[in-house]
Amino acid sequence: MITLTSDFGIKDPYVAEMKGAILSINPNAKIIDVSHEVTKFNIRMAAFFLASAAPYFPKRTVHLAVVDPGVGTERRAIIVQTTQGFFVGPDNGVLMLAAQAQGIKHIYEITNPKFILPCLSSTFHGRDIFAPVSAHLDKGVEPAEFGLKVKDVIVQKFVNIKRKNNLLHSEVLHVDSFGNVITNIKKTDLFQTTILTVNLHNVSLEVPMTETYGQVKHSDALALIGSHGFLEFGLNQGSFSEKYRVNNGDRLDVILPKT
Amino acid sequence: MITLTSDFGIKDPYVAEMKGAILSINPNAKIIDVSHEVTKFNIRMAAFFLASAAPYFPKRTVHLAVVDPGVGTERRAIIVQTTQGFFVGPDNGVLMLAAQAQGIKHIYEITNPKFILPCLSSTFHGRDIFAPVSAHLDKGVEPAEFGLKVKDVIVQKFVNIKRKNNLLHSEVLHVDSFGNVITNIKKTDLFQTTILTVNLHNVSLEVPMTETYGQVKHSDALALIGSHGFLEFGLNQGSFSEKYRVNNGDRLDVILPKT
Amino acid sequence: MITLTSDFGIKDPYVAEMKGAILSINPNAKIIDVSHEVTKFNIRMAAFFLASAAPYFPKRTVHLAVVDPGVGTERRAIIVQTTQGFFVGPDNGVLMLAAQAQGIKHIYEITNPKFILPCLSSTFHGRDIFAPVSAHLDKGVEPAEFGLKVKDVIVQKFVNIKRKNNLLHSEVLHVDSFGNVITNIKKTDLFQTTILTVNLHNVSLEVPMTETYGQVKHSDALALIGSHGFLEFGLNQGSFSEKYRVNNGDRLDVILPKT
Repeated sequence: MITLTSDFGIKDPYVAEMKGAILSINPNAKIIDVSHEVTKFNIRMAAFFLASAAPYFPKRTVHLAVVDPGVGTERRAIIVQTTQGFFVGPDNGVLMLAAQAQGIKHIYEITNPKFILPCLSSTFHGRDIFAPVSAHLDKGVEPAEFGLKVKDVIVQKFVNIKRKNNLLHSEVLHVDSFGNVITNIKKTDLFQTTILTVNLHNVSLEVPMTETYGQVKHSDALALIGSHGFLEFGLNQGSFSEKYRVNNGDRLDVILPKT
Repeated sequence: MITLTSDFGIKDPYVAEMKGAILSINPNAKIIDVSHEVTKFNIRMAAFFLASAAPYFPKRTVHLAVVDPGVGTERRAIIVQTTQGFFVGPDNGVLMLAAQAQGIKHIYEITNPKFILPCLSSTFHGRDIFAPVSAHLDKGVEPAEFGLKVKDVIVQKFVNIKRKNNLLHSEVLHVDSFGNVITNIKKTDLFQTTILTVNLHNVSLEVPMTETYGQVKHSDALALIGSHGFLEFGLNQGSFSEKYRVNNGDRLDVILPKT
Repeated sequence: MITLTSDFGIKDPYVAEMKGAILSINPNAKIIDVSHEVTKFNIRMAAFFLASAAPYFPKRTVHLAVVDPGVGTERRAIIVQTTQGFFVGPDNGVLMLAAQAQGIKHIYEITNPKFILPCLSSTFHGRDIFAPVSAHLDKGVEPAEFGLKVKDVIVQKFVNIKRKNNLLHSEVLHVDSFGNVITNIKKTDLFQTTILTVNLHNVSLEVPMTETYGQVKHSDALALIGSHGFLEFGLNQGSFSEKYRVNNGDRLDVILPKT
């Protein structure tokens, strides 16, 4: 099984070209799209998407991710072998959030031309390198066949939350298409709080901690622990991010009640 | 075979998480997307999409649909067994238009924790309940294994057309991405008419009944019986909904010629 | 294996209806989307997408493409058998760019009602004719079973580049979602040039020929031979088409250095 994550979009034929390259090598490959609508060149968004989806796939899944502004330059192409499966893509951090969560066993640099398309382009390694490598891995080729082990790969840093008494400095990991605002605060950071305050651009908003969206009135704000285990702000059947103008990467101060 | 219908959008990794959950249980499952671009929280649009697509799938297909503003509240999770296959989703009407068209045999409430993901979230039953249940149904588990039979489920009401002499009060079921306006008027409501008048916001428009779009001049308006059997208004290679500002749910008065 | 290319969009259930129709005939069919976001009625864009993707698919792949403003009129439905596989769709040129590149063996008009859905609509031949025909071809039915051979099919003309000393009159084949501008100039038209000038609306822009995007500074302009072998203009991590307002179909004059 092979998953695909990219910023190629769904209009152009690029994703199909990758799938064709995979299926020409391994016609029985099962290919699942994670997302191709990652914001262009946004390595961190792709890393977050892949880390969200990967835990739900079976063992031995090959995860191909390609958000690759450095394509064709000196940046390396790598395979990360984890305790659960494989990650294939550029060495720019896009793979590492998901791979680290699974536990990394080995990392290999892809250099063996045997597993690369013969007419290698300089601008589309998704199709010419990562797709064929993923197809061969999925067929059972050993990862050591693709190149030598490497160690010092690039990792995208996500801000750690900073606690100062009952104040948490946090970061918006993602704003989803519903307008829910997903922070990097975890359940364990929150104790047993039933209400909290979040400082937005010009307003300080007190919201209840709920279990789900339908527990407040239509269009009312709430906070909850979302389906990936992070503190999330939302409206019941509305867009929190639109109403309060919150974007990806914004810093948010969250104030817990004094205990 | 499993189809998926949702309002999750194609950017976020939510659909991939559902697919991963299915494939972890049933790695050979064939999964087909109906649409993930249902307007957020629009249960009726999802019901219409599913009812449009379901008739074209083979017997024993499992149709998962999740537009679910009430996720995590008291609303039930159900399986509808029809003469043709299965429908899995929330008890809010999203399944029933398609299921009724196939002929309902039994409805079951999903309660057996054996078929639900162990870390059940309160906000993503698509992944944690409906996906694994669909995977197990697709593998051949009997629907009665998931819970007890229920009867009184929620059905979305679609307006019936009202006839008053040669006037039909109708509703816009859907405006598609071409800008074609699909009403709830059926062929049998129209007799052998070759021309009809539709009252729009500020204009009364007389259009010919045709077989297909190319039978009028470029950009001219027409009416025809569309591919799902409903009266539809369109332009030849243009957008009727944009030109005449018609939206989903609008009421339209259609006047047939006096006979 | 069956690929799908259309202008149906991904919101409406039309693509799923085609897939259902295929899978009802051939439940094991492997279906890959090339694109459903072709600009409405844009036959040339679909032809370009299909010609880009088709070379990466295995032998015997069936490529279904349906951008079909003439649906239901006199325009014919055809199968093009090439040295590599099959193309199925309307006789309006959408198939021919890709098919010609593979080498055409025979063209058949689809007329045999045995392979068409019994309730044939006048507006959705993608579902009612092309999908079932593709499913049967994929199962191994001989193309001659669908109808008689024909010869004089429609071909979309793409402008040839015109050379006048060191000036090349070219056409924009496609602007991709990154904003890269793909012309119809090929590598062999360029000799060993390392720099060239392109005349845009109000500006004459001198850009270096590079191998890849990352070879110029962030947001700087460049030209390169893209992954399909055409001269392409881009910015490093930016949108050339947006910055310089270049659109699909625009004519561009490219000036090579005097040798």
